[in-house]
Order: sequence, then C-alpha cells, then structure tokens
Amino acid sequence: MSDTHTALILNRIDTLRAAMRREGIDALVVPSADPHLSEYLPSHWKGREWLSGFTGSVGTFIATQDFAGVWTDGRYFTQAETELAGTSVHLMKIPSGASLLYIDWLAENMKPGQTVAVDGAVLGLAIARQLQSALDAKQVKLRTSGDLLNAVWPDRPSLPDAPVFEHQPPHATRSRASKLAELRAVMAQQGATHHVISTLDDVAYLFNLRGADVNYNPIFLAHALVEAQSATLFVLEGKVPAEVAAALAKDGVRLAAYADAHAALSALPADAVLLLDPRRITFGTRQAVPAGVKVVEAINPTTFAKSKKNDDEAAHVRATMEQDGAALCEFFAWLEKTLADAKRAPLTEVDIDHHITAARARRPGFISPSFGTIAGFRSNGAIMHYRATEEACATIEGDGLLLIDSGGQYVGGTTDITRVTAVGKIGPEHRRDFTLVLKGMMALSMATFPRGTRSPMLDAIARAPIWADGIDYGHGTGHGVGYFMNVHEGPQVISPSMMPEPHTAMEPGMITSIEPGIYRPGKWGIRIENLVLNVPAKTTEFGEYLRFETLTLCPIDTRCIEPSLLYPHEVKWLNDYHATVRERLRPHVSGDALAWLEERTQPL
Amino acid sequence: MSDTHTALILNRIDTLRAAMRREGIDALVVPSADPHLSEYLPSHWKGREWLSGFTGSVGTFIATQDFAGVWTDGRYFTQAETELAGTSVHLMKIPSGASLLYIDWLAENMKPGQTVAVDGAVLGLAIARQLQSALDAKQVKLRTSGDLLNAVWPDRPSLPDAPVFEHQPPHATRSRASKLAELRAVMAQQGATHHVISTLDDVAYLFNLRGADVNYNPIFLAHALVEAQSATLFVLEGKVPAEVAAALAKDGVRLAAYADAHAALSALPADAVLLLDPRRITFGTRQAVPAGVKVVEAINPTTFAKSKKNDDEAAHVRATMEQDGAALCEFFAWLEKTLADAKRAPLTEVDIDHHITAARARRPGFISPSFGTIAGFRSNGAIMHYRATEEACATIEGDGLLLIDSGGQYVGGTTDITRVTAVGKIGPEHRRDFTLVLKGMMALSMATFPRGTRSPMLDAIARAPIWADGIDYGHGTGHGVGYFMNVHEGPQVISPSMMPEPHTAMEPGMITSIEPGIYRPGKWGIRIENLVLNVPAKTTEFGEYLRFETLTLCPIDTRCIEPSLLYPHEVKWLNDYHATVRERLRPHVSGDALAWLEERTQPL
Repeated sequence: MSDTHTALILNRIDTLRAAMRREGIDALVVPSADPHLSEYLPSHWKGREWLSGFTGSVGTFIATQDFAGVWTDGRYFTQAETELAGTSVHLMKIPSGASLLYIDWLAENMKPGQTVAVDGAVLGLAIARQLQSALDAKQVKLRTSGDLLNAVWPDRPSLPDAPVFEHQPPHATRSRASKLAELRAVMAQQGATHHVISTLDDVAYLFNLRGADVNYNPIFLAHALVEAQSATLFVLEGKVPAEVAAALAKDGVRLAAYADAHAALSALPADAVLLLDPRRITFGTRQAVPAGVKVVEAINPTTFAKSKKNDDEAAHVRATMEQDGAALCEFFAWLEKTLADAKRAPLTEVDIDHHITAARARRPGFISPSFGTIAGFRSNGAIMHYRATEEACATIEGDGLLLIDSGGQYVGGTTDITRVTAVGKIGPEHRRDFTLVLKGMMALSMATFPRGTRSPMLDAIARAPIWADGIDYGHGTGHGVGYFMNVHEGPQVISPSMMPEPHTAMEPGMITSIEPGIYRPGKWGIRIENLVLNVPAKTTEFGEYLRFETLTLCPIDTRCIEPSLLYPHEVKWLNDYHATVRERLRPHVSGDALAWLEERTQPL
Repeated sequence: MSDTHTALILNRIDTLRAAMRREGIDALVVPSADPHLSEYLPSHWKGREWLSGFTGSVGTFIATQDFAGVWTDGRYFTQAETELAGTSVHLMKIPSGASLLYIDWLAENMKPGQTVAVDGAVLGLAIARQLQSALDAKQVKLRTSGDLLNAVWPDRPSLPDAPVFEHQPPHATRSRASKLAELRAVMAQQGATHHVISTLDDVAYLFNLRGADVNYNPIFLAHALVEAQSATLFVLEGKVPAEVAAALAKDGVRLAAYADAHAALSALPADAVLLLDPRRITFGTRQAVPAGVKVVEAINPTTFAKSKKNDDEAAHVRATMEQDGAALCEFFAWLEKTLADAKRAPLTEVDIDHHITAARARRPGFISPSFGTIAGFRSNGAIMHYRATEEACATIEGDGLLLIDSGGQYVGGTTDITRVTAVGKIGPEHRRDFTLVLKGMMALSMATFPRGTRSPMLDAIARAPIWADGIDYGHGTGHGVGYFMNVHEGPQVISPSMMPEPHTAMEPGMITSIEPGIYRPGKWGIRIENLVLNVPAKTTEFGEYLRFETLTLCPIDTRCIEPSLLYPHEVKWLNDYHATVRERLRPHVSGDALAWLEERTQPL
C-alpha cells in the first residue's frame, strides 16, 4: 500500500475516534453488512473498507480509542496482511468455524459501563442477540441506533439507482402469481398473516424481478411485506419502470418508498402474525415490529423455494452451461495460442479477466460476470480470494500453474467454474497436488446419498483423498448457486464449519458447487470446481436417493494429472465426463476453439 | 407378550393415573435416566420399563389420563412394537436426530394451566432447560420435585450395594493424585474453585476406582465434589472397603453419604466458583447450588482426559485385544465345528452368548461382558439391538447370516466387536450387502484426517459406499470406547445426528468404534465393527494429521465377500489386516482355534 493510502486510513480512524468520543462510544463495530445482509455491498455500506482499507468481501471492523482491528477468515489472511500494512489496523484472524470471534473479543476487552455501538440497521438479528447477551453478561451497554459513519464519511456514496427489470419467460419458469400463492400457502401453514423479506435474492426471486444495484448479483435494494391478499415492495422511487409497476399491480403487488419499510412494520395491526427469518433480517427491522405483534421465526420460505430448481430451470441451466463452456473453449484456445506465440506482448492476470469476460459476453443471454474473476498465476493462485488489479498483477511468463475461477450471469442461469491449467513445464509436485484435488472433486461428484442428507455432512467425502496426503483446504467444499441469481445462495452448503441443521438438507433440484483445493503459499494454488444438480438416483426400501448431475461443461487439464494416482473408476469418470463435454460443446464452437476442445477432451 | 404381562402393565398405569389425579399431575414424564444420566440403569431407576414393559435401553415414558406412550428411536421400533402390544402404551417413533420430540408433544398436547411432572433428580439439566422453555411458552407448569414412582411401585428395587475396588497398576497407568492435579489445573484455568461430577465413568476414572452396580459398565453410584486441596466422594455407606478408603484419604479424598451430595452443594460458600457440565448433571443437582454461587458451565475436564488414552493404556489395550481375539478364535472354531456336526443338539442364539462369554472368561484380566451380547440369526440380525432370551430366541438351523456383537471388560481395556458369519449356504444378495458394509468399514479405517476434525464429519466416509447402492443404516457409525470403562463414552462420536461442535474434535489416543451396517427387516442384518485408536499419521505444512490404528483382532468372514465389488486397495487392506490378525493371535491359540485362525485369515 502506498504511503498516501496509509496516511488516509490513519486520518479516517483519527476522525472516527474523535466522533466516538463526542458520542460517548467506547467501541464501534462496523460489520460487512447492509440492511439486507447481502454478500456484495453497495458502496454506501462499505464502511469497513473505507475505514480500514481492507477490501476483502468478509470482515468486521472494530475501533476503540487505542485499538483498531479487522476480523476476517483464512481466505483473506494474505490479502488483509498486505492491505492493512502500516494502517495501525490489526488483522484479527478467525479460525475456521468461529465467525463470531469478535463478540468474544468485545466481551473480554470492554469494561462494565462502557458502550459498544453498532448500526442496528445493518446488524443481523441472530448476531445481535448473541452480541447483546455477551455484552449484557459483562454489563457493557449496546447502542444500536444511528450510523456514526454518516458523521465521519463526507463523500459517502449514495444508494444505487439502477433500474429494476422483469425476469421474463421462458427463462422465468414460474409466474409471480404462482410463487406468491406458494409462499402464502406456507405462511398459512405456519399461522402467519404477514411476512417480511429483506434478503435481496429472496425478493428478486419472489417477484421475478432483477436489478443491477451491486456488481455480480442481479438484485436491487428492496424489502417486501407479503400479506394474504396483497404485497408491498419497498424500493427507491424511480427504479421500477412504469410497465413493470403495472405488471406488479396486476399481481396485487404495490410499490412503496424504500425508506418506509420500517414504518410499515410499525403499523402492523395488533392481531398480525408476522413470519420472519432471524438470520435474514436485521436487528433494526426486528425492532420496528410492535411489541404486541406475534412473531413466528422460521427460514424464509422463498429461500427453500428458490433453492429447488424445477425441471424447466434445470433445462435452461444445461443450455446455459453449453454456452458458458463454449465461451471457455474460445478463451482457453486463445490463451494457449497466445502463450505459444514467442513474439506476443506481455500477458497479465488482468488480461485473462478481460478475455474470459469478453468470451462470455459474446454468448446469448449473458448479463454480467457472476463474481470477480480470480486469475492467479503461480503463487497468486494460493491466495484464495485473489483479485488481480491493473496496479498489481502478475504477468503470465515462465512455467507454473494458472488458476482461473470465473462465472457468468445469464438469463438462463448462473455459472461458476474453476480450472487450473499448466503454463510451460510443470513438475511432479504440481501433478500430485492437482491429482489429489481432482480425486476429491470426483469422489463427491460420484456420491449417491439419501434425500434429506444434511449437506455439511458430505464435506468429508471430497476432503478424504486430500487429507490422505496430510493436506487440507481452508474453505468449504461447496456452496448453493442461484438461477440467474446470487452465485452463493442457501440453504444448502457443503462445509465443515456449518452445523448440519435440518434446513441444510439436500433436496432434488438444488445446484451446488464442488470445489476442493490445495494452496501452498508462495508456490501455487489448485482448485477444481464444477456445479452439480441434485437429481434422483434411485428409490429403494431405504428411501429416496439423490446423486449429482455435473452441470459444468469444460475440460479438466489432463496434462496436470499424475495417472498412477488414479483408480480405474476415477479414470472412467473423467473419461466419461470429457466425452460428455466434447459431445455437448461441439455444436457450439468452431475453428481454434473446436480444435482445442477435441484435444483437451481426449481420454486418459 | 403374555396376557398376564399385558394385564400387569394396564394395572400399573391405572395405579399411576390414580396417583397423578391425587397429586394434581396432568402428565408424568419418566425418562430413561438416573441421577448420573447413565446409559445402563440400576433397576431402582427402571421406572419406564416397569410402567410400560418396554425393555430397550432408550425411551421416555409419558402418561396422561387418556394417553400413555414411549418415545424411542429406530433401533428399537421392532422390539417396542412387540413389547408394547396390548398394553395400551403407544410407540412414539423418534426419527433420527430428533431425540427431544416428546417435548414438542407435550407443548402441543398440554393446555395452559396444566401441570407436567418429572423427577428433577433424574432429568438432565440441558434437557430440563428445553422442557422448561417449551412449557413456559404454553403456560404449562413444570413440577420437578418428588418421584411419583415411589407412591405406585411397591416392590421398587433398592440401590445397588456392590463393593467398590481399585483399578490397580500396571493397568491403572495414571495415579489418582496426578489425575486430580491435572483436573485442578483445568479448574484453575477456568477460574473454578469447585467442580461437581455426577457421571459415573468420570468419577470412576478420576479416582481409579471401579464397581459393579450395573451390568456391563464397571462403575458405582457416586457423586464427586472436587476442591483445590480436597475432594469428596458421595457413595452409599459400606460400599468402599476400609483399605480403599484409607488409600483415598492419602490422596485427600474423603467419603460422604451418597444422599448428602445435594446438601454439600447447598452448603457451598458464597465465593465459590462451581464448574459443572450442563449435559452431565441433573436439574435436581443444579437446583441444589445456592443462587449466589457463580457457575462456570463446561464439559467435565475428566471427559476429555479419559478419552485420550496414553501410550501405556494403548499398549494394555493392544494386549487385551490379543486375548479377546484369541477367545473369539476359540469361540468361532467351536461354533463352526458344532454347526458341522449333523448329530448335534439344537443350538440357539442364547447358547452363542454363553459360549462367547465363557471363551472370554478363560482369558486373563477378564471381568465381565461389556454389554449384552447380540447374537441374531437371519431376520433377528436386522433387529439392531436384538437380545435373545431363553424364552424367545432363534435356533441356528438352515442357511443364513449370523450377526454377533459382543465385548468384554478386562482390567487392561474394553472390547466391542461385531462379526457376521455364514451359516450353511448364502446367496449373492447376502454377499453384496456384506461387501458394501465391509467397504464402508474399510473406507473409514483407511482415512487420514486433520487432528481436531470434528468426529461427526467423518461419518459420511463410511456411509458413502453403502449409500451408493441406495442403502443406509439407522445408527451412528461409531462411538467412543472406554479403558476398562463404559463401552460408550464421549466426547467423540461418529454420527450424522450429532452436531459437530468443538468438543467432538478428534485427538490422539481416542478409541472409537467403526461399525457400519445394513439391515433388511425380515431378512438379515449385517454389521462389521472394529475398534480403532487415533494415532499420529504425519505432520505437514498443513498441520498434524491422524489415522486409525485398528485395535480389534479377529478375522472377517471372507466367505461372505463378493470379490468383484472390491477395489484393489481394499483387497490389500483386508489381506494386510488378516496377516496382522494371524501374526498377533497365533501365539495365543492352539488346536482347533489355531486351525480356524489360519483358515480364516487366508488372503483373498
């Protein structure tokens, strides 16, 4: 980081501390969160990044008069160390599975009578309860009203105003009316008359609307309040075009001002029964509910509904994967040709990002990348959430492994794929690690399991072949993936740090990533990622069984494999996969891309 | 069940209902529990069995004026259906992972103002909190004082009075003084001045004492209160011989009356800080603690300490496994010879139990079986916790699979092994199931995993090869095993229904069972079980890794295997295992047993 940048951060924290003294705040907590508990935040809510300079997607900032720190997890240690250097902000490392460590820190370090402040409008309700209880036990006060950032952040960005648009048939396979009817049926089962939704993908799913308020996730800022006969969408004025508003009105959905959501909750009738998801609304939203209103706590029904893709959606995703895979063939054919050209201009990791996005952009239905491309050459591949920038990125030169994790939003689905390819010559240690990761990926891809298996319990199946060599990876094995929607969605997750609670059960139609890895800091990083669909495998006297249909279509670089480490059934899986990839992608590519596809899908 | 038995049960429940009316109790809960939350109960606390006639080890009885039911899990459905037939007591089936379902039932079925009673002295504290909160929400009263069973159970058995004895060196490898010192160090770390222990295996472990108050587990009824300089053991008068009392006194351990434990807690000084384990003490015990005393809740430190067997203990267990394996060779040699004898008398499942126990009893250090032998022929093998009795047991006649799950308590360790053997001719379906179970057992036995892996996460590794065929088993894959101690001990457990919380972490020295199975009701049951020890595998840049050393030494019946289903690395594991079994057991057997060992350990 530059000296200017460092000075800027030091100055901001000084200003913050002065404001804290004025307000009688002993510790300020700035979570990575917005009023919707989103993964990708509009700039308006990137206060932690503005204050600390740490740009990772997950982190909690805490400042007192004599301490400032950012809590983040293993994916970001290397990045945070670099970005926080010289800023006086400490990197507070969160071991896997301890995401609320900063609460313990507050409980240990604050004194009775002191005040901890956090903006309740961006504090998850479930977390708020734990924070409140930890601070109560130490007689520390918690102040949740007000956002101190407003006082210290002069050029704070305004809220995004991108227009909202409809997700249209045929890609929108379920009508808004039918989704609302399904939701109301669940509400009725649970005895609820009202339901408040703050999570943006749930809102976008329910109303068949999309937006562009943040990068990568096709969502828009809104809250929704659903009642038995009507529904209200709280959204910034001017964002919903008149024809969309008219279509919504036909389905009994009226528009209201974004800022009025809390007021609407406050005005709920005394006999209302409000369904809300404590993990998916903020403390501020919960506080708006009148004390007399009965609250039923449960996971948003839309979270379950949208996770289960129907047959039509699955068919669109398969078609989308063909387009995405074809784009990748074009990209990889270009990449290999370019690298082979002795007289070429220098090629950087950022060029990779541009070219892969350009290849996708030529495909029908493409909207945007589904997350920031991770293109990491050699040791950069070991930085789990590495993002090359124009200012700091490696040149693809010499020998090594190149890791590329990328994806696209298409009207017919969301993609997310990681491939590792050999540049120049690689050695036996690269091959061994690559093969172990591949074995892990295949082991889980081949699994059959009972419907209802709690997804975190599947994690060890992918990890076992990697553990066998005394190696592990510091992230989950897989995450749910949306349908032209967030690339990370619940409720299923294949991770050892998630509790296998009932809501994590595997159901037909869910799309999940399988992405084990091996990361050797300073050397290389390897991850192989496919998306898979839960499909029925068989029904026996023991019940229904599911298996994974691999959706992702793109060759896995067999030049990186050490064949002697593979069992025959693994070789068969890989050859079958490559035969499918070849057959499905061939109609969509030509020229260099076709030649590359043919070459890279040869059987082992 | 006989008509007499049925009439008896109906009569007992009538008497109970009359007592409930007198006492103003609308629902009475009788858990399967004693004041120590033991797995095996002294008869005195087998109230649920006495009231309902259901003899399974796990079940909760609830009676109201117009309903009586026993909640139990999948292991016991078949048994409970048989035993409850005609008694008017309903079998309430608990799906896996929902052990507190009866609390939901009470919350749903009781009316505001009604009273639910349960003896607080035998109600786990953690469960009591959930029960209290569920009933509070419905304005139902919870009464925890008093034991209504005393009023209705005229011939209630008295408390057991078996003498207590010392676990002697060399088999007791750690002195009482060193165990107390280690415990006090943990107490000090946690800021505790006092620690109350009610779980009998923790008490027995800590003081190097053993008893015979219940079948199978070598423990005795006692509570312990440990302070910085002294400790008190609350035990029935007359059970501790004078020389043992004198040895205890030397280590600062004084004896007090069993009934005085609550009084001692009530007398704690106001500045005491009491460490207690909410999952390992009862509500009644917690209630005895004065309101002013600070309580630190954490798992009993002895639970962790006793789970990690030291090198000397591991060496004793290995020697014990040789004796146990030799006894099994003698037993199986006798069994096969007997079955081959055309003129033999009928052989029953109960005979199996007698002969296997007799074979163990001839071995040095044997104390008792470690649980009731499960010998199930053909369809009886599918009853997971089947126990053959003289009155009702199958004769081993004709063709089929015979499942034998048995174990011994020895001064140098506790064993637990399941083998399935072919009687007469078996078919390809038997072989297929047997081989799948074996694959599951081997897959987990071969695993390497990071130290600290949460044990429930390993479950899927054993299950995957069985799931592949659309088959599952309704029990956990493995349980911790004690050292001349309970055959089921925590904190580790390999089960999909247990939350992978931090205390379930795998540490070196733990002994766990690996016992996948396949059960086809009405047909056959297959389970293959070995005990394994967590040993260091390797240390790499990714940390410490553990692997399993298989401790159990006994051939696996290769006549039941379908070799085409095994991968080469599985065949190698099995052949290596059999070579080890042959080599380690050969010195301990002769004659028929040696011949059988040689024959049954031939490589595939």
